[in-house]
Amino acid sequence: MADINAIAKQFTDFYYEAFDSNRANLAPLYRDISMLSFEGSPYQGGKNIIEKLTTLPFQKVQHKVTTTDVQPSSTTEAKILVSITGLLLVDDSPNPLQFTQIFQLVPDGASYYVLNDIFRLNYG
Amino acid sequence: MADINAIAKQFTDFYYEAFDSNRANLAPLYRDISMLSFEGSPYQGGKNIIEKLTTLPFQKVQHKVTTTDVQPSSTTEAKILVSITGLLLVDDSPNPLQFTQIFQLVPDGASYYVLNDIFRLNYG
Repeated sequence: MADINAIAKQFTDFYYEAFDSNRANLAPLYRDISMLSFEGSPYQGGKNIIEKLTTLPFQKVQHKVTTTDVQPSSTTEAKILVSITGLLLVDDSPNPLQFTQIFQLVPDGASYYVLNDIFRLNYG
Repeated sequence: MADINAIAKQFTDFYYEAFDSNRANLAPLYRDISMLSFEGSPYQGGKNIIEKLTTLPFQKVQHKVTTTDVQPSSTTEAKILVSITGLLLVDDSPNPLQFTQIFQLVPDGASYYVLNDIFRLNYG
């Protein structure tokens, strides 16, 4: 399991650093077949997904990962399921929001792309 | 998407009804290759997973699903990714706990089994 945990760590470190600094840098992670469910709304394809992510209505955002769970998601291919819970600091709000995000990562040559992406805020 | 949403609804209705009434009834949903991550601890195989679930230290439990997100998780097979957020009422505590649970469902004849299962409580 060390290998997929390392891949998941590398992915999430990159993902949230890019999200929090310049969301357009996430574009290489998505393909035409990629899917995003964002707070229940579906987006298909890298272009639509990046358009959604880059037009979210906040100026500053910071993700803090609390937990990361990783499992192989196929018995025949090197796909990986990554489940994140964490806190989201938006603009100058002092109150962090809890979030949950799930990715399925699919190998593509030496790297991975995101086939599945599901994001939810958790309201108390 | 109607079809996979209906399958996910049917699955989660069955899963949480069985969990909350008699956890041993979940056994048919898991196979030897099934994986559970429960609060960060890994369990492999139906026998180990059911042993874990049936020995959780509470007498009464009730799941209330808040959100369900569903995506196809393979471009070639009819696998389904289901992400749940909700509330958990344990024993006689008046304070519900927030939880997140992710399943990957894999078709097997006319039904589905759980290949991946990741459960986390979300602490505020």
